[in-house]
Amino acid sequence: MKLTLKKNAYGKNAVNLSKVIRHADYHEFRQISVNVSLEGDFETAHTLGDNSKILPTDTQKNTVYALAREHFVDSIENFALILANHFIQYNSQVTQVNVEIMEYPWQRMVFDEKPHHHAYVGGSSEKHTTSVVQTADGVQITSGIKELLILKTTDSGFEGYIKDQFTTLKETADRIFSTQCEATWDYVSADLDFTSLYTQIRETLLKTFAHHKSLSVQQTLLAMGTTVLENHAEVSEISLKLPNKHHILFNLEQFGIENKNEIFIATDEPYGYITGTVTRE
Amino acid sequence: MKLTLKKNAYGKNAVNLSKVIRHADYHEFRQISVNVSLEGDFETAHTLGDNSKILPTDTQKNTVYALAREHFVDSIENFALILANHFIQYNSQVTQVNVEIMEYPWQRMVFDEKPHHHAYVGGSSEKHTTSVVQTADGVQITSGIKELLILKTTDSGFEGYIKDQFTTLKETADRIFSTQCEATWDYVSADLDFTSLYTQIRETLLKTFAHHKSLSVQQTLLAMGTTVLENHAEVSEISLKLPNKHHILFNLEQFGIENKNEIFIATDEPYGYITGTVTRE
Amino acid sequence: MKLTLKKNAYGKNAVNLSKVIRHADYHEFRQISVNVSLEGDFETAHTLGDNSKILPTDTQKNTVYALAREHFVDSIENFALILANHFIQYNSQVTQVNVEIMEYPWQRMVFDEKPHHHAYVGGSSEKHTTSVVQTADGVQITSGIKELLILKTTDSGFEGYIKDQFTTLKETADRIFSTQCEATWDYVSADLDFTSLYTQIRETLLKTFAHHKSLSVQQTLLAMGTTVLENHAEVSEISLKLPNKHHILFNLEQFGIENKNEIFIATDEPYGYITGTVTRE
Amino acid sequence: MKLTLKKNAYGKNAVNLSKVIRHADYHEFRQISVNVSLEGDFETAHTLGDNSKILPTDTQKNTVYALAREHFVDSIENFALILANHFIQYNSQVTQVNVEIMEYPWQRMVFDEKPHHHAYVGGSSEKHTTSVVQTADGVQITSGIKELLILKTTDSGFEGYIKDQFTTLKETADRIFSTQCEATWDYVSADLDFTSLYTQIRETLLKTFAHHKSLSVQQTLLAMGTTVLENHAEVSEISLKLPNKHHILFNLEQFGIENKNEIFIATDEPYGYITGTVTRE
Repeated sequence: MKLTLKKNAYGKNAVNLSKVIRHADYHEFRQISVNVSLEGDFETAHTLGDNSKILPTDTQKNTVYALAREHFVDSIENFALILANHFIQYNSQVTQVNVEIMEYPWQRMVFDEKPHHHAYVGGSSEKHTTSVVQTADGVQITSGIKELLILKTTDSGFEGYIKDQFTTLKETADRIFSTQCEATWDYVSADLDFTSLYTQIRETLLKTFAHHKSLSVQQTLLAMGTTVLENHAEVSEISLKLPNKHHILFNLEQFGIENKNEIFIATDEPYGYITGTVTRE
Repeated sequence: MKLTLKKNAYGKNAVNLSKVIRHADYHEFRQISVNVSLEGDFETAHTLGDNSKILPTDTQKNTVYALAREHFVDSIENFALILANHFIQYNSQVTQVNVEIMEYPWQRMVFDEKPHHHAYVGGSSEKHTTSVVQTADGVQITSGIKELLILKTTDSGFEGYIKDQFTTLKETADRIFSTQCEATWDYVSADLDFTSLYTQIRETLLKTFAHHKSLSVQQTLLAMGTTVLENHAEVSEISLKLPNKHHILFNLEQFGIENKNEIFIATDEPYGYITGTVTRE
Repeated sequence: MKLTLKKNAYGKNAVNLSKVIRHADYHEFRQISVNVSLEGDFETAHTLGDNSKILPTDTQKNTVYALAREHFVDSIENFALILANHFIQYNSQVTQVNVEIMEYPWQRMVFDEKPHHHAYVGGSSEKHTTSVVQTADGVQITSGIKELLILKTTDSGFEGYIKDQFTTLKETADRIFSTQCEATWDYVSADLDFTSLYTQIRETLLKTFAHHKSLSVQQTLLAMGTTVLENHAEVSEISLKLPNKHHILFNLEQFGIENKNEIFIATDEPYGYITGTVTRE
Repeated sequence: MKLTLKKNAYGKNAVNLSKVIRHADYHEFRQISVNVSLEGDFETAHTLGDNSKILPTDTQKNTVYALAREHFVDSIENFALILANHFIQYNSQVTQVNVEIMEYPWQRMVFDEKPHHHAYVGGSSEKHTTSVVQTADGVQITSGIKELLILKTTDSGFEGYIKDQFTTLKETADRIFSTQCEATWDYVSADLDFTSLYTQIRETLLKTFAHHKSLSVQQTLLAMGTTVLENHAEVSEISLKLPNKHHILFNLEQFGIENKNEIFIATDEPYGYITGTVTRE
């Protein structure tokens, strides 16, 4: 029985880049983290240590900075497309390029209802992501949002589930529903207004979460995914990961105090984890 | 030479509590993390393992949840005062109570310019903090803000510093200035509108940072501290910690590309760390 | 075009469990974190909020603790098998169970070359992992090691790679090679001595890393994977992820000091990331 | 009332440095993280933005790398002394230098009971620390250990404590005692064999923890501190921080299963936090 090298890839992760675009009336500030990964004919690097087909990850990093000056001008999707195209065009041994970009959000400071010229506040956990996969056959763009921490204080219940010998959970018609939402969706084309679409899809996700009368996390997940597909023809499929950030009712009754669904223990672990993908048939 | 037990303390950290306050027209959601620490006559617990003067940290935790129902109704400062007072009042062996509370920010979702009734977005790194120290002599309230990530793309330089044989840094009249600001300030009284003051002081810090023509981090630090004291008589002293979140100009010239102060490497380590305290004489 | 729910799953993550096994002459201490995830006929939970086929994640958690008493007695692989079998046996709507277990290493303290009866030191980043996937068709066990931080100070070079207009990396015949190794391997059977195999495979990985004359990370990766397959017939396939933990030569020459491959900057980001899978044909 | 700048300091944190020392028969590998902080006459930097007395933090960083070649040859204490002395000697405006060094542990790999020539395993959370404070009056060296994760499965109880209306904790004569120990101790001199002392003090801490019949964390803390002072005349004072890493008995009885002190929930938050300092009178 022969041993063979199956799937392999290499690249540079966490290329942290920031850019100042100096507009006439304000400064735009963008901060991203880029991952590049190459697949292709690298067999001899593994078997012989022959690096003649290896573009060093250090060079990949330099390329990201170099191309950012001219080409990182609007959406992370468009910059990722430029990068993927560059690596596949100039490296014939490469059959697939994967570029992932994560953007950190920065908001201009606002004083007296006027955005400041060049001062920003950052620090949100929420990030806009994109993944571009380019091969000879074409390109697939999958964008998303991650670490979007959302919560609703009502319109969420969980009842009617299976009971067995290990059940201790109490049914409730009114609980806190909180999750650190991660969503990724496939675009049908590489020629779209990605910035505008991202804003719209984010809004759709938030609105559906807020307005849904949730009988389970599963039901809300499907509602969120379905609404995105119904409202955005540019999206062919969406996947959602909804880890439960539990807020558990504290037992105040043991102290003779009533807890009218007011006081909760916030816990990180263990956590329920609900995932699903909605697609067009 | 005799060995003695000097300063000692014990308590419960990271008591994670959330509360829903159900107003007529919307739900208020608050999430905090509480640390309690007691000092006092605990010598025999250390020397003999005699726990008769020890209020278990588990009970301290329960007390936080129990008192939150009635007493966590507005500012974290007021709730911390209630907690500190409770522990010192019911435990005669305790000479000092330290209560620290950190509040996680949650913003109501807004759709069509209208805040939603009960849906929230969280996830900001920025936290409001307070520390209450209560003894027989009285109480000191020190509030603050932490992990406030701020950045300005201009109006910051660094020139005219010492050069020696290990200097490689280039002088610049125009750099990115970014910091994860931590500020703590002492209040002169326990009877203040802490919620309003916090909002005002935060605004003062942001404004000063944004508008200052910075010749060094040190100069901006003093400006921020001084402005808070000048504008808020309720504050007797303020300390600032301004770690430098460096954005370093990437050398594009080595590739024959001009970098007109546009493309930067964002780095976390190593980082400059500037601290200072401004007080009233 | 109809919308459909594709792949979906739900379960409990980070069920943190510890166990003391009181042997006659010493106490054994084990600490694990368990993830359970169920797939199956959950369509109506998503579409209707009908939870009648949902075994709550809270019950899954309780089940892990309940079964641990009798069944977590040796390898994490065997405990994962018991758990997977339990969930599929008692839940006819479930078509696939995924159980992941990660074990935290604890070492008995040793004094005067004698292991202590019941005191332990922990804290290593290295973890033993297993993933058991059970369906009607059978079971697949994939075990692994993660966050294994290893380093060699020599016998590693990187030369002869592609140079282009963005190349700045210097070729070197002698560099530091450090990685936080993650390896996962498929076992050919569910009836193996998993504890002994894990120890052997870990040793094989370390030995190959240490003794290999590395011309590239890719070459060492293949050597590590190949040696495991050659030495352990119980393994059908192995995947390795070798992020480069860079130690970059510091330029002391600019200060007139010679750096004879002695002084390095340790950096976390950006980092090279090399992955590959070796299999039997 | 005039505003004044009180305590202020600035410096460079997280200067991550690694060094290979090539001995005849093996390679020694060391990895440290250095913080430098300067205090002194920096008033005009704050008030005027006059940087003429400011040694840039970037230069401080370069200095650490430059001096490491010749002077980082044995203990982190001795290297910290060299660094502190350098900064105070060449900067007359500096009145106090604080140098903190944290060392990451790396162990040589061992095959067939023989340590390998140049391959290492790292990844332990445990770190050796030192803090050197130098002024015109002299120097104080405070060394320590941090993130030392230790656990004992028995010989620990907690009984006889205060009960009040919020008590729910059950007394126990036999519980798991686990802590992530942080200890710092003051040395009486700058001319000591720090490497040997560190090994001895670490051993003393572990032994005392393991052998102590603990009636409370407080009692064990005092025992650990006292034993170090009794055994090591070179230490004048020791402080310990013992956060409780709780392992809480899981209630299996609710399922009709006996839990003979075997199955525990491992939790990180909330956690008891016990601190104390033992000194010579």
